[in-house]
Amino acid sequence: MMDELLNRQQRLQQLMKQRGVDAFVITHNVGLYYFAGSMQTGYLLIPSEGEATFFVRKSVSRARSEYAGRVEPLESLTELQSRLEQERPDLYRGKELVFATEFDVLPVSYYQRLQKALPGVRWVDGTMLTRETRMIKTPYEIRKIKESAMVLHTALERSLSYIHVGMSELEMISRIEHDMRQLGHIGLMRMRAYNQQNSSGIIVSGASAAFPTSFDGPAGGEGLSAAFPFGASRRTFEKNVPILIDVGCCIDGYHIDQSRTIVFGELPDDLQYAYDAAERIAKQTETNMRAGTVCERLYLDAVTMAEAEGLVDHFMGFKADRAKFLGHGIGLELDEFPVLAEKFTYPLQPGMVIAVEPKFTFPGRGVVGTEDTYLITETGCERISMTPPGLIRM
Amino acid sequence: MMDELLNRQQRLQQLMKQRGVDAFVITHNVGLYYFAGSMQTGYLLIPSEGEATFFVRKSVSRARSEYAGRVEPLESLTELQSRLEQERPDLYRGKELVFATEFDVLPVSYYQRLQKALPGVRWVDGTMLTRETRMIKTPYEIRKIKESAMVLHTALERSLSYIHVGMSELEMISRIEHDMRQLGHIGLMRMRAYNQQNSSGIIVSGASAAFPTSFDGPAGGEGLSAAFPFGASRRTFEKNVPILIDVGCCIDGYHIDQSRTIVFGELPDDLQYAYDAAERIAKQTETNMRAGTVCERLYLDAVTMAEAEGLVDHFMGFKADRAKFLGHGIGLELDEFPVLAEKFTYPLQPGMVIAVEPKFTFPGRGVVGTEDTYLITETGCERISMTPPGLIRM
Repeated sequence: MMDELLNRQQRLQQLMKQRGVDAFVITHNVGLYYFAGSMQTGYLLIPSEGEATFFVRKSVSRARSEYAGRVEPLESLTELQSRLEQERPDLYRGKELVFATEFDVLPVSYYQRLQKALPGVRWVDGTMLTRETRMIKTPYEIRKIKESAMVLHTALERSLSYIHVGMSELEMISRIEHDMRQLGHIGLMRMRAYNQQNSSGIIVSGASAAFPTSFDGPAGGEGLSAAFPFGASRRTFEKNVPILIDVGCCIDGYHIDQSRTIVFGELPDDLQYAYDAAERIAKQTETNMRAGTVCERLYLDAVTMAEAEGLVDHFMGFKADRAKFLGHGIGLELDEFPVLAEKFTYPLQPGMVIAVEPKFTFPGRGVVGTEDTYLITETGCERISMTPPGLIRM
Repeated sequence: MMDELLNRQQRLQQLMKQRGVDAFVITHNVGLYYFAGSMQTGYLLIPSEGEATFFVRKSVSRARSEYAGRVEPLESLTELQSRLEQERPDLYRGKELVFATEFDVLPVSYYQRLQKALPGVRWVDGTMLTRETRMIKTPYEIRKIKESAMVLHTALERSLSYIHVGMSELEMISRIEHDMRQLGHIGLMRMRAYNQQNSSGIIVSGASAAFPTSFDGPAGGEGLSAAFPFGASRRTFEKNVPILIDVGCCIDGYHIDQSRTIVFGELPDDLQYAYDAAERIAKQTETNMRAGTVCERLYLDAVTMAEAEGLVDHFMGFKADRAKFLGHGIGLELDEFPVLAEKFTYPLQPGMVIAVEPKFTFPGRGVVGTEDTYLITETGCERISMTPPGLIRM
């Protein structure tokens, strides 16, 4: 595992050198896990050259058992400067130091304490450096995502034996969560974006699926109340009304994301048409995803296709509430890079893992569509989510 | 509900006036829910006098259905300044404006965007203002916390019918979560502190309960892996080994927290002694909790008592890993004010809701103790958690 971690650190170090960063201070639990294999509370200092040091507040013994690299106890943040000067004298050569940390997740007050503890440092936002490092998955990470896919598939397949007309969205998500939890799901999905929280995705049906929400996705759901205003509600499943099962899980830190549309009976003709269009968009995206394809191209092509189908107002949400993406990277967080959206000009690279989720929203009636997670390869892509594609008719 | 929300805003406005803050910008989902009854994405601007405005990015229609006050659509943060000048000309009187926001939760990059959007503003940390406002619960909030207590008690009582020797911690938390979820638990407990995440508490037994962790509490647990290093593990329950059920849930946004120690057979004598000492500390704290008592006094008295019992090295964790508190406020977040800890010199006030959790940690053997949530009243306190106190012998 240490080779794996060093490889990750070295990839970050390359980016740091390109951008003139002397050291990166990782504070966020997900970053600590990615670069040190440990989520113990502390600061992982990765210099642009040489060995990283994990300064740990709590628990030092556990950090040592999890990270084979340099672990140093840190009683208080105020010691950090003297400890750094002592252990990394090469960093302090009289010039102004440029340190990076992740501005997109670090709260202001923690940042101010870091600034105060290291007064000689100029801080820059390192968010893109870690996100870009993490967007290329290693073979180890891909195996973990596949384990997650297997757990999700097992729970979903089991759910087809008990789902019934009259069951509530809440009842179904409770049971799927229970089954995934017993298989090792940590009980929540980690999301990076501010204010986004999720336990294991959303199960939404009919009108409640198309309810407008703050959630940055094609289907938010009515949720349980204003205090948790998206995802499953107490609404029950009905005949001929689409049910969207957009769930995921997190095994050993790694997430999978997948959606299937289920219907008891038949979808109304226009919703069936939209469902088939979603499959056509998924198929086209699958065909075009390979190393070199530019992310935003895939999104724009999907919008063009939705326009040609006469469904663009319903694509990824309804009219003003449309989400402006087709898919998202996934790994240690549900919302990773790259995003299949405008202005994301990254060319796809082997090792990227992306959830592609074309969906169509019909206010008052429901959301239909599909979602699978793919691994990008040199020549194309490999579907990682394990549930067979297609509309599920009960 | 609008009266309730206005009352909360007015209490914040009083604190703002005392501290010279012209306006508060609430950005965090929990703050938005507390002051506007809505978690839609946006900025709630509360001036120190007069009406608040909820500038909403998404979803405006849902925000309007949830908040009866002033809701204004906001396309982009860059509009905020001109919208403010137009709608609140009284704020702009040529003098430097002092705005507050919550530095303890707002990520740096979001803060920088706010600073850029409102260039004439001096920003101050408003964390204490909102935490102090929220630490006094209204009758509405107390009712909600009691609903949460009822759900937890129902699930816990049911668990006593299926818990058995050989069952794993993970299996048990999965079932309790499932039962609470069906009764409306949102599937996670909201924690304010950076990097803290939790779905519904921890179930830990024997050696795994006393495993050192980064979690800031008396019992962390081994967890599922380094990627979720606290709470339930796959360890199974054994005879004569303590099981700590420290779980909570979140109903309509409000949390309850409660712990019980369970044992199949008997606790070893020294652990039984420690359990009884925990009960004595709980009882003493209960006796002393009333309006006027200073928070840190309760903590220091508990430490004195643990010393007198010869158990201070085991109190709230073992030796260096001891958590330095006895209890914590609870409400819309699991970790609210006040904290029963040193330097918390708040006198208790009627309406505070506090979880009191004396526990003793024995490395390699387990954690024993108890936890109940109390409402502070004029003359004393009222226990809100509903499960009868006492060691549960199976």
